[in-house]
Amino acid sequence: MKIGFLGLGGMGAGMAANLLKAGHQLCVWNRSPALAEPLLAQGATLAAEPQQAFDADVVVTMLADDAATRSVVLDSGALASAKPGLIHLGMATLSAAFVTELVERHRECGATYIAAPVFGRVEVAAAGKLNILAAGPLEAIDKVQPLLDAMGQKTWPLGEDPLSAVAVKIAGNFMIASAIEAMGEAAALTQSYGVAPAQFLEIMGNTLFNAPVYRNYGAQIAERRYEPAGFRLVLGLKDVGLALAAGQSRHVPLPFASVLRDNLLEAIAQGDGERDWAALAQVAMRRSGQD
Amino acid sequence: MKIGFLGLGGMGAGMAANLLKAGHQLCVWNRSPALAEPLLAQGATLAAEPQQAFDADVVVTMLADDAATRSVVLDSGALASAKPGLIHLGMATLSAAFVTELVERHRECGATYIAAPVFGRVEVAAAGKLNILAAGPLEAIDKVQPLLDAMGQKTWPLGEDPLSAVAVKIAGNFMIASAIEAMGEAAALTQSYGVAPAQFLEIMGNTLFNAPVYRNYGAQIAERRYEPAGFRLVLGLKDVGLALAAGQSRHVPLPFASVLRDNLLEAIAQGDGERDWAALAQVAMRRSGQD
Amino acid sequence: MKIGFLGLGGMGAGMAANLLKAGHQLCVWNRSPALAEPLLAQGATLAAEPQQAFDADVVVTMLADDAATRSVVLDSGALASAKPGLIHLGMATLSAAFVTELVERHRECGATYIAAPVFGRVEVAAAGKLNILAAGPLEAIDKVQPLLDAMGQKTWPLGEDPLSAVAVKIAGNFMIASAIEAMGEAAALTQSYGVAPAQFLEIMGNTLFNAPVYRNYGAQIAERRYEPAGFRLVLGLKDVGLALAAGQSRHVPLPFASVLRDNLLEAIAQGDGERDWAALAQVAMRRSGQD
Amino acid sequence: MKIGFLGLGGMGAGMAANLLKAGHQLCVWNRSPALAEPLLAQGATLAAEPQQAFDADVVVTMLADDAATRSVVLDSGALASAKPGLIHLGMATLSAAFVTELVERHRECGATYIAAPVFGRVEVAAAGKLNILAAGPLEAIDKVQPLLDAMGQKTWPLGEDPLSAVAVKIAGNFMIASAIEAMGEAAALTQSYGVAPAQFLEIMGNTLFNAPVYRNYGAQIAERRYEPAGFRLVLGLKDVGLALAAGQSRHVPLPFASVLRDNLLEAIAQGDGERDWAALAQVAMRRSGQD
Repeated sequence: MKIGFLGLGGMGAGMAANLLKAGHQLCVWNRSPALAEPLLAQGATLAAEPQQAFDADVVVTMLADDAATRSVVLDSGALASAKPGLIHLGMATLSAAFVTELVERHRECGATYIAAPVFGRVEVAAAGKLNILAAGPLEAIDKVQPLLDAMGQKTWPLGEDPLSAVAVKIAGNFMIASAIEAMGEAAALTQSYGVAPAQFLEIMGNTLFNAPVYRNYGAQIAERRYEPAGFRLVLGLKDVGLALAAGQSRHVPLPFASVLRDNLLEAIAQGDGERDWAALAQVAMRRSGQD
Repeated sequence: MKIGFLGLGGMGAGMAANLLKAGHQLCVWNRSPALAEPLLAQGATLAAEPQQAFDADVVVTMLADDAATRSVVLDSGALASAKPGLIHLGMATLSAAFVTELVERHRECGATYIAAPVFGRVEVAAAGKLNILAAGPLEAIDKVQPLLDAMGQKTWPLGEDPLSAVAVKIAGNFMIASAIEAMGEAAALTQSYGVAPAQFLEIMGNTLFNAPVYRNYGAQIAERRYEPAGFRLVLGLKDVGLALAAGQSRHVPLPFASVLRDNLLEAIAQGDGERDWAALAQVAMRRSGQD
Repeated sequence: MKIGFLGLGGMGAGMAANLLKAGHQLCVWNRSPALAEPLLAQGATLAAEPQQAFDADVVVTMLADDAATRSVVLDSGALASAKPGLIHLGMATLSAAFVTELVERHRECGATYIAAPVFGRVEVAAAGKLNILAAGPLEAIDKVQPLLDAMGQKTWPLGEDPLSAVAVKIAGNFMIASAIEAMGEAAALTQSYGVAPAQFLEIMGNTLFNAPVYRNYGAQIAERRYEPAGFRLVLGLKDVGLALAAGQSRHVPLPFASVLRDNLLEAIAQGDGERDWAALAQVAMRRSGQD
Repeated sequence: MKIGFLGLGGMGAGMAANLLKAGHQLCVWNRSPALAEPLLAQGATLAAEPQQAFDADVVVTMLADDAATRSVVLDSGALASAKPGLIHLGMATLSAAFVTELVERHRECGATYIAAPVFGRVEVAAAGKLNILAAGPLEAIDKVQPLLDAMGQKTWPLGEDPLSAVAVKIAGNFMIASAIEAMGEAAALTQSYGVAPAQFLEIMGNTLFNAPVYRNYGAQIAERRYEPAGFRLVLGLKDVGLALAAGQSRHVPLPFASVLRDNLLEAIAQGDGERDWAALAQVAMRRSGQD
C-alpha cells in the first residue's frame, strides 16, 4: 500500500513516524521541507509537490486548517490528479462546511474521503496513543484500519457520514474550552473568598473532576503557566468558531460557546492570543479586578 | 464528647450512622422524628427539640438549606441555649451571606462555627467516603477531626475563614452544572449531525472526560433517565443562585453561571423542575427542535 | 383629605412639592429632617415619627428601596398603627416579593396598598410630569387620582393587582439598561472601525432611536460624562436584580438581564459603581482594549 | 452623468425611481428583468448584462448580500470591464470583510468604491427619505451627492474609509435587534405578572421609548403580527452575524449580539425563520411556557 502523508507539524510528524515504525512506506510532503528530514532518515521519501504525495493508494492529511487543506489538496490540483480509488484520511480539525465540500469533490474524482480527526496532543501523537474518530464508507475504513491502529490507541467508529466524526471532534474541543472557562470562573470566585486557585483546582482535580483535562489545565491556571503555548488561544477561538458554525447550519444554539467566543476575543484584545488557551481563565480574574 | 446531630435526610442519616459506627454517642434530632428510628436502633438518643441536641460539645447540622438551618439553629433558640465552647460543624450547602451571619451569631454566643460542606451523594455519605471541605478556627477543627474522619475519606483544610469552604463547595457545584450544560449543548450539536447522544457521551467519558461526573451524568443524559431524581433540578437552580450571590457580593461576574440560571429556569418552566438536574441537557435539545 | 408623605430625596421632594402646590395638606417625614425644610416653608407639617405621617387618609412613600420601606413602614409600627381605611401609595421601585408581602400586611391592617411606581428622573418629578404606573383596588385608585394628577403627566392604569405595576416598572428599567448596553457594544464596535462614539451615537439618536433614553444616555456615553451620577450604577445593578428575581419567581429566563448583571458587576469591580450607570458602556470599551 | 443601477428589489426599485424623478439617466439591471419594467416606463434603459450597467460614470448597487454582489460585480467581469474613474456606490448591507476586498479590487481597476448603506425600509426608500451613511474618498462623495440627495433625506458623512459606514450600518441593525429582544424579554416578564404585551408595549412606546423602532416593532409583538415579513428573521440572523464577524476581526466582544444569535437560531429551529424578525420576541415567551 502506497501512502502519502501531508502536514508534518507537531502532530503530523509523530503520526507519520508511527506509520513508518509499523512498516508502512510513506511519501511525505510539507510546505517547509526541512521538517521532513527526521522522517526521511526513518525511510520516508520526499514529495516535491503535493501531487506526488497524492500518487498513492491512501493519503493522510494533517494540515493546519481549512485554508491550508484547501490550498494543498484542492487548489494545487493534487486531488484532481489522484488516481481513481484513492482513500483520503483527513485527520486535521476542519469545519463541517469544508468537509461537506471535500466529500463532494472527492466523489467527483472517484476518490473516498474519510474524516478521522483525533483527540490528543503532540506527545500523545508521538506515542501512537491518539483517540481517533473515524467516519466514512465502512469498506474504506476497513482498508485503512492498520494505519489508524499504528497512530492511535483506539478508533471510535462513527458511521458512514464523515460529518459525524467532524461534529464529535468539534464538540469535544468545545467541551474542553467549557471546562477551562468553568475553572476560570470558579477560581475567580473562590479566590475572592481567600482560596488560592492552586488549592481550589487541586481539590477539584482530585475529587469531582479527576480527569486529565481538569488536572492539566487546572495546573496551568493555578500557576498562570501559559507559555510556551501547548495550544494557542487564537486557535481555540478558531475551534469555538467551528462549533458555532456547525451549530448554526443545523439551527443548534450553543450559549456556552457564545460566551466562550466573547471571552476568547477579550483575551486576545488583552494580549493573550499567542499564549496557551488556558489563559482564557484570566478573563474572569481580570473582570473581577483580581489579576 | 457529647455530639448532637440535626438533619437526618438521605445525606445526614448516612453521616450520623458512620459517627455511631465509629463509637461516638449521638443525640439526634429531625423535624420528622420517624427518620431517626434506624439511628436509635444503633444506639443514638432522640432529642425532642433542637435545644436538646445543642446541649453538646459538638453539634453537626445537615439541614436542607439556609431557611431550615435558620429555623432550627437560630429561631428555635437552640444556639442561644448552647453551652459556651460549643463547636458547630455546619455540613450542608449554605449561602455565603448566611454563613457570615452564622459565624457572627456563634461568636456572640461563645460558640465556634466550622463550615464543613461535602462533595458526594447519598451512597457516598453512607459509605463514609465523602470529601469534606473544612474551614474555621484550626484548634476547633483539630478537635472534630475524628468525626470528620468517620464521615469522609478525606478532609480538605481551607484555613480559618469558614467562607472559604463555603465558596469551594458552591464553586464545585457550579462546575458540575457547567459540565452538564456543556454535555447538553455538545450532545445537541452532535445529534444534529447524526450521532446518538449515547455514543457521543460514551466517547467523551472514556477519552477526554474520564471522570465520574461526566460518566454518570453522561449516562443519564444519554438515556434521558431523569427520574427518580438524585438531585432535583430546582435545587440545582438554588445552588447556581448561591454561586451568583456569592460572586455578586465580591463583584465577580460569572457568565457561565448566568447561562445556567436562565436555562434552569427554562427547564422548570417546561416542567422539569422535579426531575434530576441532568435534565438541564434537554434545554439544548428542545431549543434546537430535537426533543 | 389628610396626606402623609414619607421619603424626601430628590424624587420625593419634587413630588411632595407638587402635591402642596395643588392645594393638598401634607404631613411629611424624612429620616434626615433637614430635607423637609423647603416643604415646611410651603405649608407642610413635620412628622417626628413615621407613625405620625401614617395618621392620615392617604400615605405616599418614596423611600430608597425594600429595606428602607420595610424599616419605615413595617418595623417602625407605622402601618400597624394606621387607622382603618388607609390608602398607601407606594411609589418607589420595590421588589415583587416585597410588594407581595406589603399587600398582605396592609390587608391584615384593613389598609389598602396601591403600587404606583414612576418613570422620570428628578427634574421630571419636580415638573410634575412623571409617568405613573398604578395598580390596586380601582375604587382606591379613583380616590387618589387627584394626587396622581398633581404629580404626573399621565397615570397608566394596570388593573387591580399591585404586582402588575411593579412588573412594568422593573421591566422598563431593564429595557433602559438594555439600551445602554446595546449602545456601549455598538459604540465599541464602530470605534474599532474609526468612528467616534459621539458621531455614531448622534446618528443613532437622530435616526432609528430618536427617543430621550437614547439621546440622553448616548450623549453621556459619547462624552464619557459619568459624574455626577444621575442614577448610580450600583442602583442599576439593584434594579436589574429586581428584574431577575421577578423573572425567577415566575420562571421567566431573561438572558439580556443576565448579561447586564455580569457587566454591571464588572463595572463595579473596575471602580465605576458610584458613577452614572451609563458607565456600563465602558465595559465593552475596556474589554476590547479601547478604554 | 451616466448612471448604472443594479438590484431592483423592494429597496432598489424605490431608490432608482427617485433618481429618475430627479432627472438622472439610468441604465438598470436586475437578475430577473421583469422587475425593471416600471423603471423602463419611467425612462430607464435596460442592461442585458451587468457589464453594460457598469459602462457608466457612477454605478449604484443594491443587491441582496455579499454573495449576490460578488457574483454580479466581480465574477461577472463587470468591474474589470468598467472604465477608469468609475465611482461605485455600494448601498446594500455587506460584510466588513467583503467591503475590504471590494475596496482593494476597485483600486486595482482604477475605480472608486463608496460605502453608502442606508437606514429605512421599503416605503422610506420609495419616499426618498432614507438616512444614508456615506464613507469613501471625499471628492468622489461630492460628485455623487446629488444622487444621494435624490434618494435620502440626509447623508451622514463618515470619513474616507468605507468600512466606517459599513460598521455604523451593521451596528445600527444590531441595536434594532437588541431592542426587539429587550421588548420580548420584558413582555414575557410583565405578562407573567398579568400585563398584556399590548398594554406594556404601548406604555413603553409612549413614555421611555418614544421612537419608531419601539413603537412599530412593539405593535407587531403585541399583536403577534409576524406575517407578511417586513424583514425576514433569517436575514436578521445574517445581520447579527455581520456584527459578530466585524467585531471578531477587531477583537470586540459583543455579548448582546451573541445572545441574539443564539435566540435567532432557536427561533429558526422552532419554525419562525421566514416570519418577520420581530418574532424573535416569541423566544422569551416560549421559554417561559407562555406561548
